[in-house]
Amino acid sequence: MIENPFYSPEFHGEYNVASVGRLELEESGTIPDCRLAYTTWGELSPTKDNAVLITTWYSGTHQIWRDVYVGEGHALDPAQYFIVAVDQIGSGLSVSPHNADGENASIAMSGFPRVRIGDDVVAQERLLRERFGVEQLQLVVGGSMGAQQTYEWAVRFPDKVLRAAPIAGTAQNTPHDQLFASVLMDAITSDPGFAAGEYKSNADVVAGLTRHADIWAVMGFSTEAWKQEFWRAMDFDSKEAFLDGFLRPYFTVMDPNDLLCMAWKWQHGDVARHTGGDLAAALGRITAKTFVMPIDEDMFFPVRDCRAEQELVAGSELRVIDEILGHLGLFGVAPTYMSQIDQHLGELLATPV
Amino acid sequence: MIENPFYSPEFHGEYNVASVGRLELEESGTIPDCRLAYTTWGELSPTKDNAVLITTWYSGTHQIWRDVYVGEGHALDPAQYFIVAVDQIGSGLSVSPHNADGENASIAMSGFPRVRIGDDVVAQERLLRERFGVEQLQLVVGGSMGAQQTYEWAVRFPDKVLRAAPIAGTAQNTPHDQLFASVLMDAITSDPGFAAGEYKSNADVVAGLTRHADIWAVMGFSTEAWKQEFWRAMDFDSKEAFLDGFLRPYFTVMDPNDLLCMAWKWQHGDVARHTGGDLAAALGRITAKTFVMPIDEDMFFPVRDCRAEQELVAGSELRVIDEILGHLGLFGVAPTYMSQIDQHLGELLATPV
Repeated sequence: MIENPFYSPEFHGEYNVASVGRLELEESGTIPDCRLAYTTWGELSPTKDNAVLITTWYSGTHQIWRDVYVGEGHALDPAQYFIVAVDQIGSGLSVSPHNADGENASIAMSGFPRVRIGDDVVAQERLLRERFGVEQLQLVVGGSMGAQQTYEWAVRFPDKVLRAAPIAGTAQNTPHDQLFASVLMDAITSDPGFAAGEYKSNADVVAGLTRHADIWAVMGFSTEAWKQEFWRAMDFDSKEAFLDGFLRPYFTVMDPNDLLCMAWKWQHGDVARHTGGDLAAALGRITAKTFVMPIDEDMFFPVRDCRAEQELVAGSELRVIDEILGHLGLFGVAPTYMSQIDQHLGELLATPV
Repeated sequence: MIENPFYSPEFHGEYNVASVGRLELEESGTIPDCRLAYTTWGELSPTKDNAVLITTWYSGTHQIWRDVYVGEGHALDPAQYFIVAVDQIGSGLSVSPHNADGENASIAMSGFPRVRIGDDVVAQERLLRERFGVEQLQLVVGGSMGAQQTYEWAVRFPDKVLRAAPIAGTAQNTPHDQLFASVLMDAITSDPGFAAGEYKSNADVVAGLTRHADIWAVMGFSTEAWKQEFWRAMDFDSKEAFLDGFLRPYFTVMDPNDLLCMAWKWQHGDVARHTGGDLAAALGRITAKTFVMPIDEDMFFPVRDCRAEQELVAGSELRVIDEILGHLGLFGVAPTYMSQIDQHLGELLATPV
């Protein structure tokens, strides 16, 4: 393991870490001591019937959900729900390549095994059941890779998921997304400082992490967002200043192996592996009331792909988010974004199931 | 200079090379002996009133136009028109970093000056006038960077351009395109084998050129094209086989400095530099009958951007090409592509001016 102060409460606010024990992985590896970082808001009702699960996206943690999505006045209101956000494996807060020590020392850094979306969901289910006695969720919601986990939950544990809201993501990763994630990974691994995953500090890989950030600039925001100079609303005075002052620093503090762990997981997201490759059969298992919520200007989870999956989920609805920023509109910086999310999640939570 | 056998008639078919002499560049550099590669089809009429100019795109040459766009049965019919395709500066056939020798030895490799779209157009105008006595063009047509040159021709020499057909490109490069081109450039320059532009062979930079190709895979084709597995029609049996068998070899034979020369030029394409940054004023100079022809699934020259410019060109028409492949549909591999191009160019050429 290596020290990386970014992955601490100082940067992510308070969170808990709990072990769900040994986790045998789909890809045949093992995490000896699967520690999950999580945060909760609100109180679990005596009958344990008000739980909501939030899953996290690539490079993101519970933090953005706390800062933007959860709170009084939002659909995700702690006065009404017991809300649990679980940081994904590889996030840097839960067990990850850079922080694997103690029982996990054997899987540190380049030795970290391949993790799949399903592994996260199995671990999350264990955490909710063992730690809180939660056997059923009013809602599972997540964006991007969080949407992948949301679909996985609804397909794998249909009886446990009453409602599902995959935002800006798919149940089965597309070929284009696989290529995009490869390009992101190559930007990191091609840096000589990466040293086959055995760098001494993320600072050794700053050039690769910077290129990785710049590729996000091209795919993460829409062509129109750049044209409209969205960064002015964030108090930058040029797109280069936005890159230097926001997007590059956002990624360069992160751990390269952690990002690669998540990228591989994203690339291989596919609920159809439960049904021999039959996506319709997999999505046909879903009994949750599902709102599929793509972002209209998303460059890599386009509405077209999300709609094709939505049409395979019985009783589901397509709720398109108007967001000129594109995929990274998930950060919620546009003033018109959260009102749409809250409206849709509010309606979903109000739908009897 | 270095030897690169790819840039030869063996791979590009027969072509001519002519010097237009010393070229003073917009960015204050100089090309001592500006040699342009060009090809012609058909016969120039005695009154020199049947000339058509084709401009070339990033990494492309006259070859693709010969193979796909020009010929009997096409709108660009040599039986009717004297058609001249001029390979752009930096294309590897015209004067370029890798082939700068003799009088140009001082600007070889990393010493090559920055070239702008306007420099190409000035050199092309000189070639047409001095070599063929052509003072007026029935049509200027080009795709992508060729569209940039087409707009530049129509703005700079309005009296010389009767009709213009910019395909899948813009008059003023967008911020997003600038970022995209930077990412492509970084993929090359970050390869240690690039050696600050003083590599001994393009083979030294194969890793960077491969990453550059993979980024094209993400942006050059639409998300839907990948989903529909367009590569099956090209006799590949997986997307990886398509990358290994087509897209990577397409780029890895090319010269890194040549690609960088073109990428910088693409990044800085902007007709508004003629009018102090006023795009409407620049496009307002155009008197050519203009068909603006974006590709509907283009990931980086979206219809929205092309339409915004088209609306600034008096008397112009927007002719959208339906092409699921996206930008690299320009290669003309889809059976439904050339019929659309021929229809629009045919109508344009038939329009009295």
